[in-house]
Amino acid sequence: MNMTAADIFSSIEKIRAQAPLVHNITNYVVMNTTANALLAIGASPVMAHAADEVEEMVSLSGALVINIGTLSPDWVEAMLYAARKAKELGRPVVFDPVGTGATTYRTGVAREILEEVSPEIIRGNASEIMALAGCRASTKGVDSTAASDSALDAARELNSRYGSVVSVSGEIDHIVDHTRVARVSNGHPMMTRVTGMGCCATALSGAFACVQEPFVAASMAMALMGVAGELAVQESGGPGSLQLHFFDVLYRITLDDIGRLLKVEVTA
Amino acid sequence: MNMTAADIFSSIEKIRAQAPLVHNITNYVVMNTTANALLAIGASPVMAHAADEVEEMVSLSGALVINIGTLSPDWVEAMLYAARKAKELGRPVVFDPVGTGATTYRTGVAREILEEVSPEIIRGNASEIMALAGCRASTKGVDSTAASDSALDAARELNSRYGSVVSVSGEIDHIVDHTRVARVSNGHPMMTRVTGMGCCATALSGAFACVQEPFVAASMAMALMGVAGELAVQESGGPGSLQLHFFDVLYRITLDDIGRLLKVEVTA
Amino acid sequence: MNMTAADIFSSIEKIRAQAPLVHNITNYVVMNTTANALLAIGASPVMAHAADEVEEMVSLSGALVINIGTLSPDWVEAMLYAARKAKELGRPVVFDPVGTGATTYRTGVAREILEEVSPEIIRGNASEIMALAGCRASTKGVDSTAASDSALDAARELNSRYGSVVSVSGEIDHIVDHTRVARVSNGHPMMTRVTGMGCCATALSGAFACVQEPFVAASMAMALMGVAGELAVQESGGPGSLQLHFFDVLYRITLDDIGRLLKVEVTA
Repeated sequence: MNMTAADIFSSIEKIRAQAPLVHNITNYVVMNTTANALLAIGASPVMAHAADEVEEMVSLSGALVINIGTLSPDWVEAMLYAARKAKELGRPVVFDPVGTGATTYRTGVAREILEEVSPEIIRGNASEIMALAGCRASTKGVDSTAASDSALDAARELNSRYGSVVSVSGEIDHIVDHTRVARVSNGHPMMTRVTGMGCCATALSGAFACVQEPFVAASMAMALMGVAGELAVQESGGPGSLQLHFFDVLYRITLDDIGRLLKVEVTA
Repeated sequence: MNMTAADIFSSIEKIRAQAPLVHNITNYVVMNTTANALLAIGASPVMAHAADEVEEMVSLSGALVINIGTLSPDWVEAMLYAARKAKELGRPVVFDPVGTGATTYRTGVAREILEEVSPEIIRGNASEIMALAGCRASTKGVDSTAASDSALDAARELNSRYGSVVSVSGEIDHIVDHTRVARVSNGHPMMTRVTGMGCCATALSGAFACVQEPFVAASMAMALMGVAGELAVQESGGPGSLQLHFFDVLYRITLDDIGRLLKVEVTA
Repeated sequence: MNMTAADIFSSIEKIRAQAPLVHNITNYVVMNTTANALLAIGASPVMAHAADEVEEMVSLSGALVINIGTLSPDWVEAMLYAARKAKELGRPVVFDPVGTGATTYRTGVAREILEEVSPEIIRGNASEIMALAGCRASTKGVDSTAASDSALDAARELNSRYGSVVSVSGEIDHIVDHTRVARVSNGHPMMTRVTGMGCCATALSGAFACVQEPFVAASMAMALMGVAGELAVQESGGPGSLQLHFFDVLYRITLDDIGRLLKVEVTA
């Protein structure tokens, strides 16, 4: 099995045609950014976190994205309500354990979410994935201090415990399920100087999960992030212009763009 | 009666000269965006939502903008405190019923706000306006699935019930009061791929409402959105650059810019 | 004593090399903006406000930045928890009293924070600093209506009461401690048309406070803001593009850039 540019572009065309609603319960820092990324690729984002409406909102949605970047108890409660409803309805749940390992509270919440809802996709950096699996890993705030491949065992462990596809971002992204590993070698270091790029990867995983099974969706999201990031960096004089060119590229990306740059390898 | 480029530009000059304070209780996704739009046009935005200060803040302000995009019970309570105070002081209230129709909670809150405070201006898309009036309309999250003119009867119904000017955005924007309809044919489809453009229309309606009566204010805001959007699209390679060029255009827009592009028609 | 471009650039190089974690408990409007400013200069931002984790998060951090732009009681409580912990651990606290003077609640909270934690740096505009010191000053929302030098006495008063370095932004920025005043004459009026520029000054003060003593840190932050703002304006057609070019400039600023433009004067 492999993943071609045509596979990815055909999924993007499905997203553009169907404009699936993606329900996000995410952090304050990146809400604007991930909404713009979802709109640019052709999805329809909604941000809603009131306990009184999250179950109804998720029932209208093609996927649920939860992200604990700026968590607090009432938001976590809403995430759990929404995620349980999503599971009940068979909608994919994508979980971003931002900053797991940095504080006891954050790690505890992340594990509670895993135990309660077994998300279809977990998308984090190496430090977060290792902390989530219980490895001794060092996290500095929300930025990873470990390389992506050092988290491969942790990713496999989380997959075997919760059945989740685990998507570990880094210089090389690794996407793991029980039989396969996808390695995406696209991207650019300047992307780490823009806040919310990891959260965009998570949100786009949600968009792809509306039109593809979780492993393929998670891999396509990372490939698109990397290719679009490389294209955007070419036009950018720094991280400020990178952020906006990234949205422009998502909006107008072509099969040829992906074909020229794609570096993905899937092994069994 | 008609609305000329000179009328609109003269109101913009008033905003630039007076820099009216516009108090926003709005959603997390767009706060940065609407603050920047208000600053770019020359107004002075303030975002404040604590129950302990909203009444005092609104008393310093020229207009109040409330927007339920990411509502929760305590924010709704603050909106009601602020809006009642604004009505008491005779300050215009602009209400954006984001996502009304999507969930029972959201629709209920939107109607409660209408009943309690009869806003001077209601600004929403066709789905939201129809849901607000009790029509059977389909909303997908926060994006409209209906054309603007299909909401004209709903807009008239809301106007007759609450006395509010109703501003329905779409390919053609319709602004309705009890005797007049303004039709604005400016704008560009790429604007729907930037989050918060509708919320900017609402915020700018608040800025114009500091210097004009509600029907004129709502019409001028939609005309400015459309003209500035068209100008910004000309410089933009996608929705990322559109957002920032939109602010640049608001900041430097001239009478000539508006005169060249304006397509507004007011009928009795 | 004076402050040269080489001094400032050498501190920027320290920030880039150490990537200090800066813990922000700040307002919803600017979170994305200040996170991007901190990333662009080479620091590692984290935003976390849950009472359950702020003490642990601050203990991982090089500095704490608190900003009351969109305050509410639970956020203020978290600010106090975090700030007390920072003091206990000897980490610098930078406080931005956004909108102090506009409402009784806001002014009360700002003074409570001063009394409880004596921040190493207070960074505000003239209206805020004067209101904080108890002068009769007029604030219109969150924008200053007074010139920076009119707040010098208030700044000295706050310094003598709390020991804080007081950084007053304006056309000329004044940074005051008990023996020195730094005057920074850099910057550009268009910066006042971008939301969150003051908050970026506060956040960057936090980054510099990880590698310098408070007076020097606060002065360097204002100098960098001004120089980077001037450079960014040169490439910008308005405040929308200014915001992104500002991040680009922070990311790639050189010793020569600072040397060409720097206008800072330190007097005893």
